[in-house]
Amino acid sequence: MSERAREALERLVVDVPDFPEPGVVFKDITPLLDDAEGFAAVVDALAAAGRDGDGNVVVDKVVGMEARGFILAAPVALALGVGFVPVRKAGRLPRSTYAVSYALEYGEETLEIHQDAIAPGQRVLLIDDVLATGGTARAAVELVECCGGTAMAAAMLMELSFLRGRDVIGDLPLASLMVV
Amino acid sequence: MSERAREALERLVVDVPDFPEPGVVFKDITPLLDDAEGFAAVVDALAAAGRDGDGNVVVDKVVGMEARGFILAAPVALALGVGFVPVRKAGRLPRSTYAVSYALEYGEETLEIHQDAIAPGQRVLLIDDVLATGGTARAAVELVECCGGTAMAAAMLMELSFLRGRDVIGDLPLASLMVV
Repeated sequence: MSERAREALERLVVDVPDFPEPGVVFKDITPLLDDAEGFAAVVDALAAAGRDGDGNVVVDKVVGMEARGFILAAPVALALGVGFVPVRKAGRLPRSTYAVSYALEYGEETLEIHQDAIAPGQRVLLIDDVLATGGTARAAVELVECCGGTAMAAAMLMELSFLRGRDVIGDLPLASLMVV
Repeated sequence: MSERAREALERLVVDVPDFPEPGVVFKDITPLLDDAEGFAAVVDALAAAGRDGDGNVVVDKVVGMEARGFILAAPVALALGVGFVPVRKAGRLPRSTYAVSYALEYGEETLEIHQDAIAPGQRVLLIDDVLATGGTARAAVELVECCGGTAMAAAMLMELSFLRGRDVIGDLPLASLMVV
């Protein structure tokens, strides 16, 4: 990761105490998105997870998770020169989908992908802003596999390591730009 | 707009009948997002709304509307080299916000912006995928004005002209890449 990306992450991801509920410290990335140079540096750092050691692009698609994941994943796809595929909450994709549900603290969440979004054998990079419990990332891996694709790696702006999401995603290679 | 963007829009925005309800024809942009060259050409075409005739960038910020707007607005901000500001549904932005509500067919929607997202006097380009009734775009203009900024223009991938959103946004310059 470049020095510029590291500096931007340190300076422009800010703690907001007691959001969304008392006792939780929310990591707000909007100041980073508002800094054109910092945002660009972070996109480059995330995109590196889709290249090999010689800089060659080794994925066919970038999958981004609704909604903040879209903000990072779309520029990463454009940087790599590959297609962008949205994973969305239930009911928002208009054509035939695969769906995966997973438990939240209260209730459950269902995520969907278009059935034709990824062709069998294609290699996918998953992008999101935060790896927390790992439920979203795990669901995205399953959705990619439903299509016949392979999740090669995930790249996250931030990993909340105390929630142990890394354990949930198994042996998927994970690049986290910040670990807190 | 480039020939590549025009061709991509024609070929890769597809009609999905009866979504989200019977009788409605949904315009699905996911095939376009999945085409790296087409997506890049469309981002360039949207970004043109933030430049003057000589190609100089004439806006200070790009505002994108949750959720599909994020997919287009973030790359446009990066292309112009200016900050990206999300307008989000109620309760999702962690710091102090301004909020604007507007009527939907059934019920209402509330959108928010961080109060410090735009400084007084800053010039803003609004980006979204679809201009339908204009309610979202009108709310975004008001949110920018709450911050003391000025909405200079809006650029939309698609305008559903039969819904007359253009009348709702008043004299805001509007660039629509496709009009249906």
